[in-house]
Amino acid sequence: MSHETSTYPIDPINRVKRLHERAAYDHATVHAILDAAALAHISYVIDGQPYCTPTLFWREGTRLYWHGSSASRMVRHQAGGVPVCVTVSHLDSLVLARCGFNHSVDYRSVMAFGHAELVTDIEEKQRALTMMVDRFYPQRTATLRPTTAQEFKATAVMVMDIERASGKVRSKGLADDPEDQDLPIYAERIPVMTVLGEPEPCPRLSSEVVRPESLQPYQAGRRLDLALAEAHQQSYR
Amino acid sequence: MSHETSTYPIDPINRVKRLHERAAYDHATVHAILDAAALAHISYVIDGQPYCTPTLFWREGTRLYWHGSSASRMVRHQAGGVPVCVTVSHLDSLVLARCGFNHSVDYRSVMAFGHAELVTDIEEKQRALTMMVDRFYPQRTATLRPTTAQEFKATAVMVMDIERASGKVRSKGLADDPEDQDLPIYAERIPVMTVLGEPEPCPRLSSEVVRPESLQPYQAGRRLDLALAEAHQQSYR
Repeated sequence: MSHETSTYPIDPINRVKRLHERAAYDHATVHAILDAAALAHISYVIDGQPYCTPTLFWREGTRLYWHGSSASRMVRHQAGGVPVCVTVSHLDSLVLARCGFNHSVDYRSVMAFGHAELVTDIEEKQRALTMMVDRFYPQRTATLRPTTAQEFKATAVMVMDIERASGKVRSKGLADDPEDQDLPIYAERIPVMTVLGEPEPCPRLSSEVVRPESLQPYQAGRRLDLALAEAHQQSYR
Repeated sequence: MSHETSTYPIDPINRVKRLHERAAYDHATVHAILDAAALAHISYVIDGQPYCTPTLFWREGTRLYWHGSSASRMVRHQAGGVPVCVTVSHLDSLVLARCGFNHSVDYRSVMAFGHAELVTDIEEKQRALTMMVDRFYPQRTATLRPTTAQEFKATAVMVMDIERASGKVRSKGLADDPEDQDLPIYAERIPVMTVLGEPEPCPRLSSEVVRPESLQPYQAGRRLDLALAEAHQQSYR
């Protein structure tokens, strides 16, 4: 059971060493950064070689789920309970300061550590595959053509208990040194947002099939992170 | 010397095993995906534990550069020439199909493999710190307050020759099975774009300091990936 007043334990693996004033370990901060994202970068090690695979993921309590093809290298390797690091990041602005050193970006990121496990229990896997769709598009699975046995078999679901996690947030924008602030050098912050375009309905849709109410979080021009967070909240309330 | 007709070598580490029709190994495809991004996810291994750190990076020929604090764990560890995987990804759309299995996203991603090295040569480091700004904002360094010796020392620059790389692109949007296409189920593609907001000039700027021409790639509403690609091209032509 996750309480949003809880905090992930801090130890040498997840302690943020540099700019630790930007660090957060509480569930509320870490989970908000995770739930605002669709893609995670999942890193794992095979024979000493690191791999980092971008993939869709989602959070349920203090567990993270992602999926892959049952035949993929990532899944075949991770099935054995290996250590992984799941990283999520949002780029929020470009910061152009008056010296090179103070150039920066605003961002939100999480590194979550744990051991990946293949979901083998049939019922748990069914529930996870439902949430893999419904976490993004609330209640959508019930409206879809059911998953075939072959599709079910071809999809692997991985799960990881978050053993350690750290969030890191920079949001202060321009931060020149006081003695630089009156130099006649152009400086600015450029906001960066990931947004949704105009939805493109399938051209083969018959006229009586309308866009479901449950896609309401996904409106053209809306920020993706806000839409994803809203959909997550709807699915897990 | 990199020729855009060249191709990265393919071996068991970088060969794309799943959905290999989406794979590309040629410099032109791989470099275009890299140059359209500001953030990379860099994974490395310490004592068997994978770490994945998001950080600013850029490409020069077939080398990748990134920086960090000289005191950071990432830099202290990577200085030893360890294997790393540098992953870059762009999310281009959400794909809502008529069954769960065909739900997907359009994306562009690169996994680049090599060994990280700390840049220790003073001149190479000076040039790299210049390009770390100028690659994003062409010719900007010449307009800035010069870097101090202390700032120079506090910043570490890492470099990696790309030994192997693979790109992966999905851009086909909705791709339902033929037998599903007439089911009365709502299906759509939602484009996703990372865009620039209205630049926010420093409120302390005096009136004679105007936005430089060289920031022309960065206009409000523009796609970040296109702005970054244009700036890279200007800086390295």
